[in-house]
Amino acid sequence: DQALALVEQQVRPKSPVQLPVSKALGLLLAEDVASDVDSPPHDKSLVDGYAVAAGDLAGGEARLKILEEVVAGAVPSLRVEKGAATRIMTGAPLPEGAASVVMIEQTELAPGTDGSLGFVQIRAEKYSPGQNIMRRGASLRSGDVVLTAGHRLRPAEIGLLSEVGRSEVKVVPRPTVAVLPTGDELVEPAVRPAPGQIRNSNGPMLLALIDRAGGTPIELGIGRDNRDDLLQKISAGLAADVLVLSGGVSAGVLDLVPGILAELGVQKVFHKLRLKPGKPIWFGVLDSDGARKLVFGLPGNPVSSLVCFELFVRPAIARMAGRPFAGLSAVRGRLTSEFVQRGERTTYYPAALEETSEGLAVRPLSWQGSADLRGLAAADALVRFPPEDRTFAPGESVVAYRLG
Amino acid sequence: DQALALVEQQVRPKSPVQLPVSKALGLLLAEDVASDVDSPPHDKSLVDGYAVAAGDLAGGEARLKILEEVVAGAVPSLRVEKGAATRIMTGAPLPEGAASVVMIEQTELAPGTDGSLGFVQIRAEKYSPGQNIMRRGASLRSGDVVLTAGHRLRPAEIGLLSEVGRSEVKVVPRPTVAVLPTGDELVEPAVRPAPGQIRNSNGPMLLALIDRAGGTPIELGIGRDNRDDLLQKISAGLAADVLVLSGGVSAGVLDLVPGILAELGVQKVFHKLRLKPGKPIWFGVLDSDGARKLVFGLPGNPVSSLVCFELFVRPAIARMAGRPFAGLSAVRGRLTSEFVQRGERTTYYPAALEETSEGLAVRPLSWQGSADLRGLAAADALVRFPPEDRTFAPGESVVAYRLG
Repeated sequence: DQALALVEQQVRPKSPVQLPVSKALGLLLAEDVASDVDSPPHDKSLVDGYAVAAGDLAGGEARLKILEEVVAGAVPSLRVEKGAATRIMTGAPLPEGAASVVMIEQTELAPGTDGSLGFVQIRAEKYSPGQNIMRRGASLRSGDVVLTAGHRLRPAEIGLLSEVGRSEVKVVPRPTVAVLPTGDELVEPAVRPAPGQIRNSNGPMLLALIDRAGGTPIELGIGRDNRDDLLQKISAGLAADVLVLSGGVSAGVLDLVPGILAELGVQKVFHKLRLKPGKPIWFGVLDSDGARKLVFGLPGNPVSSLVCFELFVRPAIARMAGRPFAGLSAVRGRLTSEFVQRGERTTYYPAALEETSEGLAVRPLSWQGSADLRGLAAADALVRFPPEDRTFAPGESVVAYRLG
Repeated sequence: DQALALVEQQVRPKSPVQLPVSKALGLLLAEDVASDVDSPPHDKSLVDGYAVAAGDLAGGEARLKILEEVVAGAVPSLRVEKGAATRIMTGAPLPEGAASVVMIEQTELAPGTDGSLGFVQIRAEKYSPGQNIMRRGASLRSGDVVLTAGHRLRPAEIGLLSEVGRSEVKVVPRPTVAVLPTGDELVEPAVRPAPGQIRNSNGPMLLALIDRAGGTPIELGIGRDNRDDLLQKISAGLAADVLVLSGGVSAGVLDLVPGILAELGVQKVFHKLRLKPGKPIWFGVLDSDGARKLVFGLPGNPVSSLVCFELFVRPAIARMAGRPFAGLSAVRGRLTSEFVQRGERTTYYPAALEETSEGLAVRPLSWQGSADLRGLAAADALVRFPPEDRTFAPGESVVAYRLG
């Protein structure tokens, strides 16, 4: 929790940028948006029917001369006088002089024989002046603020922005997050590992985690355990808002990463936590061109990497995107089986969740440790055990964090 | 509900395709995946330290000659004999002859003076044979099925697929969903509408809704109210898995869409529902090249369009992607204010949700009808009122559907 507070202290929301509305879904609005139009832009008909003048339908019945037809997108050219009516479509502008619209279902057409549009016979039992009309600006007036800064853009907001004339909008953009798995032992997934090699599973997993957390993932390839390659790729990664390394941060002789980060001006905030899995995590910051960059060195074991990402990187990405500094959502449930906790490290353990009549059941899964992605793939959640030497009994209340 | 059952009857999951793992996040796996490797691929060290032979540390202390250093990615070349030790990194393969690994924290180095690696002095109070070693295949054996068809691919699964050598995988792909707003009155958002014109807000909103629902949106531009343009754009849209039209399906003289759909072989399943907003919705299907295409004609009013999308199109997209036929998640709550329901149409009304000490409160929002996107942008949910003439009192239990 202290480490989390340290990350939270260091992270800054990104500066707003102008983006096309089509790229703004899910982002946080960074300006107040006012309408440049009235909505509806004119008095409009709410139904297909006939626009009639005041007084003509006092008794509910009338035979009226048809002046013209106004379809949606067209504008009426004639004023509706007494004794006349204009055929009008749903959404079309009301002609001058019109006091109400009668639904087409309450009318009968008597076509003209002389090329004219003829007459319409109206029988409207329930008639009220103003009926079936929506007045200009009833929904929205030009100048009205329709969305305020800080609002998150969902599909309805995308529609609203389009309605009020915005094709671009000022938003807090998605942070860019570069991924650099490191290690001479890593080969790409399509390659069959030779003795001593393992496949790069962290890279693809971290790219997917970043995507899910609302960042824009950037792939840097694999960093090899030599100064030149790491220096070049870490420098490239520092162009992003966040650099996520995996491997290279434990105490081994080839763990060159912390030294190179220091050389590039990245200030260490913490290294190593009482966390299981995830103990060797490294965190630092770099201020460059007025922007605050974050660097996370995650452990090389895939499950440690995932746990550290969910605990620290996810909330940082959220905050950079202008949202609250928050990670996975926590739930409370009851253990279904005993769990033996030992040592002074807070432990996150894969678990299955099940809704039961007595509430949420949390079942710790069989798991082979921090390289066991198969165990993690069976999990709905990570259950948290505080640091102490204690056996948790079935039925005890525990906190779990839902995995996507 | 009957209409929903009709849509469910017609929708078919898409046929699986082979995709790069990097494009498979969130999709449903359509094959069983077996590992082609053991994990770990060799007996490996779980710590940085020294690999020692059996018997050397019976008393917890020893002074051993250092044979070589094995870093991650390298392989040991020498057998560990009694009296000797190999310096080893976390994850590195264990040398032959090694019975356990002692953590570096429990050792002290005595460098050689003759160019040799020298000696290591070990003081390991708690020592057990086999300690700090993970055996080959302990987590995973070659041939083991690690994921079964029907599993949804999250970041951990992306990592697991990479670990077992998959760079491509058979999945149910995201359905393609083409969007065609129709109407001569529509202009693009960047254009200032002339009298009689309105901006195309439905197009951008539907593209965003499709993205959120797990489909791949395809933009067809605006369909104009003439046969040629509609015929061409609707034909293009039928190349997608789903075609979503907006506008053109009410009873006006220019509503050419149903005729053109029939001409192109699309079979109508239903047209018009007792639904508010959304009454004029049209739904049909086309079997083409062995694939079942769905066509939804949504009303032109933006809020009707959104409601119909969430009710009918979202579950159809989910089912096509191999997931359950399910729309927005429903919650129960208590009304905070009176709501007057009239008529024989099921009504969906924008509402704000609030968690209170007495449970979920549902507050119907001030709303100007089906063109009022501003009202919808303030909403967390759509509250559902069944068709009847009845006034719902504050405190009554209602069902609401959460919006994104």
